[in-house]
Parts: sequence; C-alpha cells; structure tokens
Amino acid sequence: MKLEKYIACSRAAQKLDKAELVLKNAKIVNVFTDRVEDGNIAITKGMIVGIGDFEGIEEIDLKGQYVTSGFIDAHLHLESTMVNPQVLISQAARHGTTTFIVDPHEAANVAGTVGIDYLLDQTKDSPAHVYFMIASCVPATEIDDSGAILTAKEMEKYIGNRRVLGLGEVMDCFAVINGDPKMNAKLELFDGKVKDGHAPGLTDEQLAAYVMAGITTDHEGSSYHYVMKERSMGMTCHIREGSAARNLERIVKGIVEHNDNTEGFCFCTDDKHIEDIMAEGDINFNVRKAVSMGISPIAAVKMATIQAARCYGLRRTGAVAPGFDADLVVWDSLKDFNAQMVFYNGELINDRLKIRPKPCPPELMNTVHLAEIDPKKLVIKADGKPFPVIGMIPYEILTERKDVVLPSTVVTGEDGTEESIFAPNGEIDKIAVFERHHATGKIGVGAISGFGLKGGAIASSVSHDSHNIIVIGDNDRDILTAVRELERTGGGYTIVENGEVFDTLALPIMGLISDRSYSTVSKKLKKMKNKAYKMGIPKTMDPFISLSFMALPVIPEIRCTPRGIFDVKKWQLL
Amino acid sequence: MKLEKYIACSRAAQKLDKAELVLKNAKIVNVFTDRVEDGNIAITKGMIVGIGDFEGIEEIDLKGQYVTSGFIDAHLHLESTMVNPQVLISQAARHGTTTFIVDPHEAANVAGTVGIDYLLDQTKDSPAHVYFMIASCVPATEIDDSGAILTAKEMEKYIGNRRVLGLGEVMDCFAVINGDPKMNAKLELFDGKVKDGHAPGLTDEQLAAYVMAGITTDHEGSSYHYVMKERSMGMTCHIREGSAARNLERIVKGIVEHNDNTEGFCFCTDDKHIEDIMAEGDINFNVRKAVSMGISPIAAVKMATIQAARCYGLRRTGAVAPGFDADLVVWDSLKDFNAQMVFYNGELINDRLKIRPKPCPPELMNTVHLAEIDPKKLVIKADGKPFPVIGMIPYEILTERKDVVLPSTVVTGEDGTEESIFAPNGEIDKIAVFERHHATGKIGVGAISGFGLKGGAIASSVSHDSHNIIVIGDNDRDILTAVRELERTGGGYTIVENGEVFDTLALPIMGLISDRSYSTVSKKLKKMKNKAYKMGIPKTMDPFISLSFMALPVIPEIRCTPRGIFDVKKWQLL
Repeated sequence: MKLEKYIACSRAAQKLDKAELVLKNAKIVNVFTDRVEDGNIAITKGMIVGIGDFEGIEEIDLKGQYVTSGFIDAHLHLESTMVNPQVLISQAARHGTTTFIVDPHEAANVAGTVGIDYLLDQTKDSPAHVYFMIASCVPATEIDDSGAILTAKEMEKYIGNRRVLGLGEVMDCFAVINGDPKMNAKLELFDGKVKDGHAPGLTDEQLAAYVMAGITTDHEGSSYHYVMKERSMGMTCHIREGSAARNLERIVKGIVEHNDNTEGFCFCTDDKHIEDIMAEGDINFNVRKAVSMGISPIAAVKMATIQAARCYGLRRTGAVAPGFDADLVVWDSLKDFNAQMVFYNGELINDRLKIRPKPCPPELMNTVHLAEIDPKKLVIKADGKPFPVIGMIPYEILTERKDVVLPSTVVTGEDGTEESIFAPNGEIDKIAVFERHHATGKIGVGAISGFGLKGGAIASSVSHDSHNIIVIGDNDRDILTAVRELERTGGGYTIVENGEVFDTLALPIMGLISDRSYSTVSKKLKKMKNKAYKMGIPKTMDPFISLSFMALPVIPEIRCTPRGIFDVKKWQLL
Repeated sequence: MKLEKYIACSRAAQKLDKAELVLKNAKIVNVFTDRVEDGNIAITKGMIVGIGDFEGIEEIDLKGQYVTSGFIDAHLHLESTMVNPQVLISQAARHGTTTFIVDPHEAANVAGTVGIDYLLDQTKDSPAHVYFMIASCVPATEIDDSGAILTAKEMEKYIGNRRVLGLGEVMDCFAVINGDPKMNAKLELFDGKVKDGHAPGLTDEQLAAYVMAGITTDHEGSSYHYVMKERSMGMTCHIREGSAARNLERIVKGIVEHNDNTEGFCFCTDDKHIEDIMAEGDINFNVRKAVSMGISPIAAVKMATIQAARCYGLRRTGAVAPGFDADLVVWDSLKDFNAQMVFYNGELINDRLKIRPKPCPPELMNTVHLAEIDPKKLVIKADGKPFPVIGMIPYEILTERKDVVLPSTVVTGEDGTEESIFAPNGEIDKIAVFERHHATGKIGVGAISGFGLKGGAIASSVSHDSHNIIVIGDNDRDILTAVRELERTGGGYTIVENGEVFDTLALPIMGLISDRSYSTVSKKLKKMKNKAYKMGIPKTMDPFISLSFMALPVIPEIRCTPRGIFDVKKWQLL
C-alpha cells in the first residue's frame, strides 16, 4: 500500500482523524470468528479501517441490518452474456457480487491474446474487482479447431499483471496426466499461482495425477460423491449454479446429510445469463439456496467470501475487518439474502452502473471465415447398423452415447444408384459443425436426440470451446441457410424455418458478443427462444445454450466437432 | 515440477508403474474431509502419488497405525539453541516436525545478511523443510544498538529465494502504525508475501492499524481474549509453547469453553531448547496438550499441518494427499502423539540425523567489541525517591514496572563527599547492558527484582534483540569480571561468584552459537544452571533465557538497554 494511503487509513483507525464513511448500527458477519457482531464499520480511502465506535465525515444508519463482505463468483465466463461484459458485472454487482474470477476462454479461443485483452480492457473500470485466469486450453484439446493457439510463450505477458491470478480451467486433463510438454510449460509458467481445474468424470487414479500437477480447483463436480473425492485430495470445489449447469442441490444435500465441513467450498456461476441474474440473483442465489437446504448462514457466507478469496490469494478481499477492501453488502436477512445496498471500495455502486463500452479492435469484428460448402458433406449414410447418436440430457450439459439405428430414407444419387441416408424425424435430428476461423472447410456431421427440432434449423457461432458454427436441423436446406446467415452477420444465433430465416441475433464481436444494448439483445433473444420452443425444443433446456455445448469435446460422453463425432470417454473420433 | 519427475509420479499414480514406496495399512488423517481413512500411501520421487490400493517396490506395513503429514513449527528462532542449527532441526524432526518457519532475527541483529546467510547455509541439507522469514526489525527498534542495520535495500536479495517466504516478525509496531517510511519500504518489498507479526498489548485501534499494513500472523498472544481480538481481524494466531513462553493453556481453554472454530490457529515454539524438545517433544507436544484439553485430534492436526502450510503459502505441504510432499509421521495414537516413524520427502529420516556443520565465515567468529569500561558508569544514585525497577514475572517474559525506593548504602566519593547509592540485596539486583558490537561504550544500568541472585553475577551475550552483553549481579566487581570474561571468549554465558569465574559457555559464533557439540554444550549448561539456582535464581525461570529477554524493548513493560531503562508502554527512556 502506498504510504500516503496507509497513513490516512492508520490515522482513521486510531481515531486521530474522522473516517470518511461510517456505516452505523450494522450486524456484521465475522467470517473469522463465525460470530455476528453489532458495530459500526469505519471506511477511509476505500478500505475498512475499523469496527467499533467510530464517527465519520459521512454516516449511514443501517438500522440493524446485516452486513457481509461482497460475494465472490469464483469462476465465470463473461462472453456467454453476448453483450458488453460490463453489463453482467453491473447486474451481478447489484445482487452483491463484488469480485469476479473470470476465465476469458471463449474470447481466447476465437482471438487469442487480442480477445483476452479486449475483456481485460472492457472490465477495467467496473464497479467490482474483475480478476482473470488465463485460458489454458486454446485450443481446448488437440482435436479442436480454434481461431487461435495460446502457448506458454504467448501467456508470458500476463505474468506480473495484477489482475491476472493464475491459469484458467485446465480442460485437457489427458494432456496434463500424460505429461504433454506444451501443457507442462503452461503449468510451469504459472508455478506458485493458482491453477484452475476442469475435471469431470476422472477415475481416482486420473484425478490424483491431475491434482499432482498443481491444479487446485474444480467447478465441474456435479455429484456429492465426486466433489468429496476431489475434496479428499485437497481441491477447492466451486459449487456451480449457472443458467445451464446447476449442481448445488446434489452437492449441498450430501454435505448437509454427512455434516461435512464446508472449508474447501466456494460458489460460482460459470455461465449465467443476465436475465437469470435479474430474475433470481447471482452468487446470493447460491447462498440463499444453500442456506435453505441446511447450510448455516455463516458457513454459506464464508463460502461466498473469504474461502474464495483465500483460494485465489486475494489478501484484502472477503471479510469485514480492518485492512480489507470496503466491498460490503447490506442484506435484508441471512435467509433471503436480498441486497439492499452494495459498496465497492467504499462507494455505493448505484452511480457506477452505467455501461460505457470501450472501442473494439477492428480485427475482433471480422472472425467468421467459411470455405465453400459442398452440401454432399452433410449426408450421413444409413447402413442399418447402430449409429453413435448424441443423447442430450435434461438440465445437464453432459451427453450420453446412444447407439441406435438411424431413421432413414432412400434417395437416388446423381449416378442413379439408390442409397439409404439418415432422415431426421424431429426425435433424432442432424447436427453439424462448420470450422469458421480459417476457412479450412472442415465439417463434422452427426445425429442428436433430445433436441426435438422440427421444420427448420437453429445455428450458433457460440459453440464451446472453439466457437465454430454449430447447427441442428431436421433438413439440410435449412441447415445450410442458417450457416450462411451467420456468415453474413459475422456470427450470432439464427433460426431458420421452412427455408426462411425467422430471425438472427448478430454477434459481430468475435462471433460471441453483440454491439447492441442489453435490452435490444434480450428482446430479440426472448422472441427467438419462444420460437425455438414452438419448433419442438423441450423446456428442460435453453435452446441456444444447450446447442452451444454439443461441440465441446472435454465433457462426457459424446460430441460433434468439425472433424466428426467424438467419443469423449474413449477420446477418439468415431 | 520438472516434467520428468511429474511423469514418473503420474505413472505411479495411475498404477502404470509401481510406486517406489508404499506405506501399507495406515489410518490416515485427512485434513480436508476431517475423516480418518484406512488405506495405503503410495510414494514416488518424494511425493505422495495416491492413497488406495497400491503396490510398491518397497513396502512397509504400518499395521493400522495413524499417519499424518509432518508437523509444522510456524515460527521459531534457531539461534537460541546455541549449537549448530542442524541439531534442533534433527531433534525436532525425530518428534515429527518436518517443516520449520525460521526467523533469523538474532543472527541478523548481530551480523546482518551474513548472519542470515549462515543460517540458510547450515540448514540447507536438513532432514526437513526449513523456510525463512527475513528479519524485519534490525535493529528491533530505533532505540536499539544492534550489530547490523537491515534496510529494504539489503533485503532485496532474498526476494525470489525459494526458501524465503516473507517478512519476519514485525516487532516495531509503532514504526508500522505511524507510517515510518523505512518500515513501509520493507512492507512494500514483501508485498504479496506473508508478513509475520509480533503485536502484544496493542489497543483495538492500534491492532487494526497494524493489521491494515498487511501483517497477518502473531505468535505473541498470551490470553484468549487477545488472540480472539486478533482472530476477529483475520490474523492467524500461532499458539506458542516454547522454553520460556507457554501460552497454550490459556488460549486453548478459551477456545474449548467457547467452542470456537480453530481455523485460524497454528502452533509454534518460538524459542525452545533442545533439552526440552528431547524431554517433551516439539510441535507434537503442542498438539498433545491441545488434545488433552479438549481440542479434537483432527482439529489439532490441522492446526499443526495444513493450516500452517496455507498460512505460509506452502502448496505442497501439510496433507496426506496426492501431490503433497511425502512428509509423513506414523504416530502411536491420536492422543499421545509419540512419533514412531518420520518420513521427509519419502525417506525415513533416521539416516539423515547426523550433524555436519558447514564452515563458518571468519567475520562471524569475532563479534564482541567493547570500549574501555569506566566502573563509575555502573553506579546508581539512591535519592530516596521511587525508582523504576524491572519486575520479573514467573513463567513469563513480560515484566512489570515497580516504582520502589532502592536499597542503599552510603559511600564516600573521591572528593570526600558522602553519597547514597543503590546497594543490591539479592531481592533487588543490579542489571547492566553493555553495547558490544561497535565499541561505543554505551552502558545502561538499572535495578531488577525477581532474579534473586546473591554473591555474584551472571552475564550473557545472548540478549534479545540486539545481543549486547547483559549482566545481573549483586556487586559491581563481579559484574565487571563477568563482562570481561565474555569479551575474552567472544561471547557466551558466564557465572561469576565472589570475584571468580565459576564457568563459561563460550559462544564464539556471533556471540550466539557454540562451535562445540550439543552434548558438550548441554553438559556445561546444566552445570551452570544448577549453579545459578544455587545462587538464588528461582526455579520459576530459566536463568539464562529469562536474563536474555531483559533488554528487549518490544515486550512490555520495562527493560534495560545500553541507553538506559526503557518504559515500553510509554515508549521512552526513563
């Protein structure tokens, strides 16, 4: 701390000067002693300087309301909001989240360090602490076709950046445990810093090898049994409640039943849409839900604050105590956790919520590059044998492999011969992924069940993790129309029905983010989602988010990539 | 981790290769889940690679005995052993302490970075991890007369040293909270690293200001009330059981009575003599005592292992889990905590306990430099008014100020006038401190009660923190004889009786450490302590250790320094 600031704070702490701001009559949750204390909170220069009997130049009477430190989202991606990242930060901050641990994985996969720098720049002046974990898997795996490749060398420039805390979620578990030298170089580069994990479905032995590489967190645990296996190896488990993946209920149920300590747990959203944040809250939603299931309010607050701060080495974040940043939330109760006031660095955030996008580098506005498409590449022969169909699972981003005989029809080829080909029937649709970064012409085609789409196609350039163009449809014509529409708009979401584009949400920034306001994007998205549900998508999923995970080869069990259908468990193209 | 090592460990973890060593049939304390698990511990290249059903090239059957990670002494000084630092490390390691957080404060005060480097060098190949916190207060305070001055500039060379974890105990609390620029420069130099505290007796406001400077630990807390004040501000409290200061009982009693969480507590010895370690153990003694008072064995083990490791940012220390250093202790029970086997980096330490001193730099062998002594400087006039006497307190290094009229006698001066001077009577003795580093001739003289010495003088060049020559006696002749004896030997302990040197333990290395074996030193020390007790020193103190703290101006309430009597509370020379 600069000496001048320290002296001002020390004088206020010692009551030699009045504090700049005093929050009077607070019930303060002390995350160190597990007690709730009555007191006044003195703040000077954005820092808490004391708890006790203080007078301030400015004073706010909290009338006995509860105060905790601002909550921490221990792991999230900002790109999934599809609007300027400031929007999510501002919305979540209203709900009491004042620290964000961001993994710029999507931007990095499309645009490398330029994408990461874009997010760092856009979030610089947020009403919250926004820290970054540098994307470790760009491309996500060796079988991915991403827009950029990040090696340890490109990452070096982030070492020493105060807003960079470590290495982002290491998805390529096998590169780690097999000792891939390129992966090792990244792990070594971030030696002594935090390395986030992403490790669903590993065996005990694989998980041990993975942890041994120095990877200390995971947010992918979806069962109590699995997270306790991770905990027993010392991992910190981020309990996730996002828009798509919701793991809290199963994990917390187990913790409560077994009366486990909650020391190694934090909360995260991973990917949460702004409308969901507006509707139910952000990390305060995780806390509220955990408390409703039987976690003590103080334990839940610790998970949302000091434990996440300690996990990421943030020494001045996560507690209402002298020397900590004055990130403070006034709550209605320790049951409902509705934020009444939010302070970031000692200032009420109300005046800092206006979105002020910064200029976008031109190269991020032109990232969709498709080769000429040969429609024949979309055809799947139906030979009467079982075919590895991607089975979508309600409320999950996991998939299951279903080997079934595809519905088929007989067509006559150009040479006059008849052949039996896959004919989607709305129960089993066609899925295709088009490489879109370097116009390589790679197209992977497969079959998918559970999406239920009839009479059209739905496509997206948001498609984890490489963000190629992914499309599901029940006929090839609409599939191609959808892909060409996204080529035209430089990326986005589109719905095609009976040969016509119904509507398109353009996402021209990296094919991930809109240059329009949140309300514009939100209105259009609502309309498009309603349409998607009318076209048969079940209400157990979000049409676009669920679609966007179907090309992701790091989550079991089976995916479609630009190189073809991929069995994640066997780690091979089929 | 180097890739070659990682691959070997990963292969063993995945059971593709046999582990190098497997400890079979262990009851393993898991500090993450708070459970005791039955299992085998697989070890390769000094690292734990897995817990479970493993086979090893070498196997040891533990027959159901308990295993924890090696214990951590969160704060200690090695110089107080007065022998080569390897001796303490080896002895404590036998009792299951495998990680030491060392503050080379005494060596630094005598010999600056040369002294620190000596300790780093001597402990390099120990059968334990020996980490250093760089002494922050050299001299301890502005009113100290030390042998060396360490500014931030001299400390820079330690940044980046893997064995240096941060800044050593910051004793000069007022330099901190008053914003002294030299202190601030040191705190800034270690920004992002751990900064150890030393903060007894501060008010709430002072402690808040101190913590705000980023100082996060304290080992000086001697009451439950005080450590809970520190805990409420987020400090980690090291519960100390040393040879002189024993704080565990009072603190643990409070924790147990109030059912407090033990998350922010560790254990330390601070200063523990080798004979005490041999007699009662090291950190396992703290653990045993805490458990006997009602702390759960698992909570106590966590305080002695993972909590200390986390406090100091040691990511691979403190747990029996994959990826952690194979520092393991096999215990007889989780009640008695007698170490049956100790492994450091996967090797039984038995073969590594031989002491192999490394050469000592010549400048460290010649550090006692006294000016010509004018005996008149020892005289204290007795004017019949109350005199600020240093009151020693049984079992404590704290002192209390007692303003009493000194016993006196009338003498005739050279000019024939009579004057009344202080005449020690065994209840109130004379204390004197002679500057010995730069031959400045400074001599502080005072009166002390509670030492009870009759018929001689006891002197030491070990005298916290500046290690000038301190002496207590009941007559000036013996006081001078004792000081001259230590000048002759280059420092040490000496006892003078009726004008004759009874015996001297020479400590020629910095005036702090002997160049002889432990058994030689120990035998002599025993003899000398027995003599001291016979001369009147009460059994409620260790004659030499208690003596060595009487010049220390950072512990309340009153001390004698080369500049005179010092009131710690008022922070002024009297």
